[in-house]
Amino acid sequence: MSFGDRLAAQVAARESQIVLGIDPDPARLWPDAARAIPASGTPAELAAAAVTAHCAALIDAAASACVACKPQLACFERLGAPGWTALAATVAHARDAGLLVILDAKRGDIDVSAAAYAQGLLGSTPTPFGEVEGLRGDAVTVNPLLGRDSLAPFVDAARANDAGLFVLVRTSNPGAADVQDLPVGDATVHERLAAIVGDLGAPGASGIADVGAVAGATAPEHLARLRKLMPAAPFLLPGIGAQGGRVSDLAAAFAPGRAGGLVSASRSIARAHEAGRGHARPADAARAEAERLRAAAWSLS
Amino acid sequence: MSFGDRLAAQVAARESQIVLGIDPDPARLWPDAARAIPASGTPAELAAAAVTAHCAALIDAAASACVACKPQLACFERLGAPGWTALAATVAHARDAGLLVILDAKRGDIDVSAAAYAQGLLGSTPTPFGEVEGLRGDAVTVNPLLGRDSLAPFVDAARANDAGLFVLVRTSNPGAADVQDLPVGDATVHERLAAIVGDLGAPGASGIADVGAVAGATAPEHLARLRKLMPAAPFLLPGIGAQGGRVSDLAAAFAPGRAGGLVSASRSIARAHEAGRGHARPADAARAEAERLRAAAWSLS
Repeated sequence: MSFGDRLAAQVAARESQIVLGIDPDPARLWPDAARAIPASGTPAELAAAAVTAHCAALIDAAASACVACKPQLACFERLGAPGWTALAATVAHARDAGLLVILDAKRGDIDVSAAAYAQGLLGSTPTPFGEVEGLRGDAVTVNPLLGRDSLAPFVDAARANDAGLFVLVRTSNPGAADVQDLPVGDATVHERLAAIVGDLGAPGASGIADVGAVAGATAPEHLARLRKLMPAAPFLLPGIGAQGGRVSDLAAAFAPGRAGGLVSASRSIARAHEAGRGHARPADAARAEAERLRAAAWSLS
Repeated sequence: MSFGDRLAAQVAARESQIVLGIDPDPARLWPDAARAIPASGTPAELAAAAVTAHCAALIDAAASACVACKPQLACFERLGAPGWTALAATVAHARDAGLLVILDAKRGDIDVSAAAYAQGLLGSTPTPFGEVEGLRGDAVTVNPLLGRDSLAPFVDAARANDAGLFVLVRTSNPGAADVQDLPVGDATVHERLAAIVGDLGAPGASGIADVGAVAGATAPEHLARLRKLMPAAPFLLPGIGAQGGRVSDLAAAFAPGRAGGLVSASRSIARAHEAGRGHARPADAARAEAERLRAAAWSLS
C-alpha cells in the first residue's frame, strides 16, 4: 500500500491529523524523565537516557490524539552515538503506540549522498557484514535546493519501502521569505518547488500522493495557491502554537481529503503545562492540548 | 584566531588547498579495512569498525598532500549509533594528522533546530548531566533554503568556536540548475544566495572570511561572478574528478589568496587504485592522486 493510502487510512482510523513534534531539549525535559537515568554514564549517555524517557512519556500522553509523530533529528544528533540510540528507541516506541513516524531530517545532497541518507532513514544498507537496518521511518522531510536529481534517490527509497517524503516548499520561519519567496518570472521560488513536488508525487487510490510538502502554517495566504500546484500532496503544516500559526487558517490544505493536511505541533504540546491552562502535570496538559488541536483540525476538514 | 585566518595559515603551512572527501561505502572499503574488525558484533558494529579503519588508512595515505578533510555525514549516519562513533573517531584521527575537519552535513532548519545542529557539529550541548561534547568540526556545510534566520545560529556557534561555515550556493550536481539557477530579476537564485553569504562573512587579517560558499567545480562559468559577490569567502569546490570538474578551471576562486579556493575530491582519491595509473595499492594510489591535485591547484593559485 502506498504511503498516501497508508496515511489516508491512518488518519481515518485515528480521526486525527495531528503530528506530535518531538524536539527534546535535555535542559527542559519533563521532571520524571530526568529521574529515569542509569546510576552512572557519560553526560551524553545520561542525557540520552533521560531524553528517551521523556519522549516515551510524551508519546504515551499524546498518542491517542495523534496520527503521527515527527522527531527532530537535530535534538538527538547533538547527543552523539547515545543520541542516535535514543532516536531509534523513540521511533520504536512511537510505532508501538500506533503512530506513523515522520523523520524531520531536512536532508538534501547530491545523488550518491542522498541515497546514503535514504538508506539510513527509510531503508537499510547492504554491507559485507550483513544488512544494516536504518530507522525505517514512514516518511522523511527533505530539502530540494539541490534539485530533482537530489530528490530522486529519496523518492526511489520511499517507494521501495511504502514510505513517503515531505519536501520543503514554504517553511514556517520568518526568514523563509529570503529565498523561498524570491520572484521567478510571475511565480516564486516556492511555487517552482511546489511544481516539482506535484510532478514527483504519485496519488494512491485514496487520492493522496506519496510525496508531500512542508508548508508552514504561519503563511496561510500561500496555501490555496500551493494546493492548486500540488492537488494530491499531503501538506505537513508546522508552525501551529509556539510559532504563531492557527488551525483555522488551514482549510485549503484539506481539499484532497482529510489526510491532505497534517498539523504539526511540538512545543505547544510538550510545554502545554507551562501555559497555565489548569493542567499542572505535563502529561495531562499535553494530552489536553493534543486533543484540543485534534478536534479543531478534524472539525475543519 | 578566526576561521578565515586559521584556514589561510593552514593552507600556507601545508602548501595545499586539497580537501580529502571521506565518503565510506561499507561495500567498497580498502581490502585491509574489512580485515580490521572485531570477532563479533552486529552488522552495524562490524561495518562501523571497518569504516573506521578505512577512513584512518585513507587519512594516513593522503593527509600529507591535504589541508583538510570532509567527512560526508550520510555515510556514517546510515550505520546508526556505531556509525556516529566511527564519525567521531575519524574526526579525531584527521585532527591528529594535522587536518582541518569540514563536516559535510548540509544541515538547515528553523532557528531552534539549527542551534541544536550547531551544538552537535561545532560546539557542545549543556545538560543537567554535564556538558555533552559535539564533534567540534572546524567548519560545517549548511543549506540556506530556509533563509537568514536559519543561518544565524550556525554563524553564532561558528564564531564562538573559531569555526567556519560553507553555505551551499551553486552545487556540483547536474540538478543544481533546477532551483539554484532560476532567474530572479536580472540575477539568479544562486547569486542571491551568494549575496547573503557575502553579507554574513567577516574577513580576518588574512583577507579570508569565516563564512564560505560551496561552489561546484563542475560549473566554472559561475565562479568569476560568484567571486565578485563574495570577495572574501573561501570557496569549497567539490566535483573534481569523479564528477567531471577540472582544477585548471578554478583560477577565479583564488582571487583573495591561496585559501580562497579549496579543492575537494573524494572518489578520485579513495578509488585512485581503480583508475589503472600504475599504483596497485590503494594507499599508494591515493597519496599519488592527492599529491597530483595538490601540485595542480598550488601552481594555479
